[in-house]
Amino acid sequence: MASIGPVTAQSAQFVEPLALASGSTLAGYTLVYETYGTLNAARSNAVLVCHALNAGAHVAGLDAHGAPGWWDNLVGPGKPLDTERFFVIGINNPGSCFGSTGPMHRNPASGRAWGADFPVVTVEDWVDAQARLIERLGIGQLAAVIGGSLGGMQALAWTMRHPERVRHCIAVATAPNLSAQNIAFNEVARRAIVTDPDFHGGHFYEHGVVPKRGLRVARMIGHITYLSDDAMAERFGRELKAAELGYSTQAIEFQIESYLRHQGDKFSEYFDANTYLLITRALDYFDPARAAGGDLARALQPARDARFLVVSFTTDWRFAPARSREIVKALVDNRIAVSYAEIAAPHGHDAFLLDDARYHNVLRAYFERIAADSRG
Amino acid sequence: MASIGPVTAQSAQFVEPLALASGSTLAGYTLVYETYGTLNAARSNAVLVCHALNAGAHVAGLDAHGAPGWWDNLVGPGKPLDTERFFVIGINNPGSCFGSTGPMHRNPASGRAWGADFPVVTVEDWVDAQARLIERLGIGQLAAVIGGSLGGMQALAWTMRHPERVRHCIAVATAPNLSAQNIAFNEVARRAIVTDPDFHGGHFYEHGVVPKRGLRVARMIGHITYLSDDAMAERFGRELKAAELGYSTQAIEFQIESYLRHQGDKFSEYFDANTYLLITRALDYFDPARAAGGDLARALQPARDARFLVVSFTTDWRFAPARSREIVKALVDNRIAVSYAEIAAPHGHDAFLLDDARYHNVLRAYFERIAADSRG
Repeated sequence: MASIGPVTAQSAQFVEPLALASGSTLAGYTLVYETYGTLNAARSNAVLVCHALNAGAHVAGLDAHGAPGWWDNLVGPGKPLDTERFFVIGINNPGSCFGSTGPMHRNPASGRAWGADFPVVTVEDWVDAQARLIERLGIGQLAAVIGGSLGGMQALAWTMRHPERVRHCIAVATAPNLSAQNIAFNEVARRAIVTDPDFHGGHFYEHGVVPKRGLRVARMIGHITYLSDDAMAERFGRELKAAELGYSTQAIEFQIESYLRHQGDKFSEYFDANTYLLITRALDYFDPARAAGGDLARALQPARDARFLVVSFTTDWRFAPARSREIVKALVDNRIAVSYAEIAAPHGHDAFLLDDARYHNVLRAYFERIAADSRG
Repeated sequence: MASIGPVTAQSAQFVEPLALASGSTLAGYTLVYETYGTLNAARSNAVLVCHALNAGAHVAGLDAHGAPGWWDNLVGPGKPLDTERFFVIGINNPGSCFGSTGPMHRNPASGRAWGADFPVVTVEDWVDAQARLIERLGIGQLAAVIGGSLGGMQALAWTMRHPERVRHCIAVATAPNLSAQNIAFNEVARRAIVTDPDFHGGHFYEHGVVPKRGLRVARMIGHITYLSDDAMAERFGRELKAAELGYSTQAIEFQIESYLRHQGDKFSEYFDANTYLLITRALDYFDPARAAGGDLARALQPARDARFLVVSFTTDWRFAPARSREIVKALVDNRIAVSYAEIAAPHGHDAFLLDDARYHNVLRAYFERIAADSRG
């Protein structure tokens, strides 16, 4: 199917400080965003797409360089999230490195780049920042908010933080909080970055260097958790790079090594190290049940008027189906309408970004239902 | 139960070069070893214990500093591997950093420390090196060879490489080769080490530094794979270090972070970086089926006269029970006698080192059978 394009990113300035969960405030900030489709006269067909770690506002279509959006297989004319029906919005979160105010930008208080002094942002902070833009776009209520992984956490947070402003929540391949193992992987990645001598306490911009060694290791760890064991076995197995073993501890012997190094190298060329720290921390901190004494059902009580679709993938070991079922159970305990789909897919966590027919059919059907609701 | 002690490490010099799988040779080398119990007159009660990554010859008893051996809960008087019945031998492998010839020792060819020039050693090379010491100790045939994880691979390799010299093989928490995911974790750990500026291409000894940053990250990754997701959740969950969140990307917030950093710090104080590379590579390379066209049963044909005990742990995701079952199937296909125990234990891969009653009972019963066989 065709992609929209070329699409142009827009930006919005906010001068009112944003109060953050940490107690700090983010004085004035810029959000970069893209929109696809047309907002209807009733302003009732807006869908917000929330991004995960390595993505931004460019959700769909081709940008000026011809690069497709990160969820272009899902969002576009005739696609499951059909831009001929819906007005779709992608917003880059503050703290990220894809256009919105982030640690590489000037800290007005110091006159130099924020670096590691950028305030710690949470999923709830992002949702609050997004809500201001949604309001500025003249949208009183979103038809839906959708996201996968960390994006799914934002979708959930919308229903608790701004319940009157979202009709449907679609949370894909996500979890109600990180497990100890999830946090552990984040922590190793962060240690790799901050102990890289080129990190300079987060102020590497001024030194004209980038902590690429740390970013490479962080990304390699990430990739292991995004793919399932089976998918890795299927795709790489023990396949050698050359015809024979080279017997070297440092040269590449196996294809999986080649793949991981390539992913690490690529990532270290464009991703910001401080953003990596901020976003993995936002993941660690997300835990709506915490303020409700560990009771997720109680935390979700404000979401009573929203309807939910929760989707998980059988081979996702980062956010396994059992984690999605915790969300479903908490919703059911509140008698909140929820559909749940557990997709048999071999690709692990990455499946939420891939074009799997069963998965996309579930989303297509759900968006058709939303469209029908909006008309009714 | 009491530990033996104090035990003293012994060492044996070998001047005849050891031909290695890589085609290189290791000119003369020293093996550090310990023995417990008494070799009987028939020289039929010797059991070789093979070590994994972070261990050496000190298997049991207390050393001069009062430190217990790494498998002291298993090996000793009255313990499952009973030193009142068996003559137990622990040997540190070449390339390791616990006494035997390794990368921190002098390379006779260059006059400086081997560093990254230490020849790449394989599981089969280690077994050949061990076999020379067993011969020197006057033992024609081992009653058993036992090991967990990488040690289990050595136990398996003994039955293929020196089949006439081993009556029983006990392979615990191991696999017939590493999966792509296993290799991936090793590779990330190696990259963390070799990209640490203090690694100096493996010749850090001459620079008076140690690539501690890389070693820490490597060990943290390792620990994640040694513990099960459930064990981590049980032990650490999302427990905070302090009473309240500190909102920091670099300070410790969660107990799991504190645990991992502590493990990483400790490890970086004593473990050798080149040894880490060598041992993880030995793991990567182990694949006895490779030379048999991928047919593990064919690879195990020479082991026809040995008997096997294979043990796995339900929550071990590093070397899952399915991997042990591959070994069992290949043995059964050869009509080789094999007992298999799949232990329901919550501790993940680490379970093989822990004192679990069901696990130790299985080993005790098997060693009693070996003792009965030896008498018969």
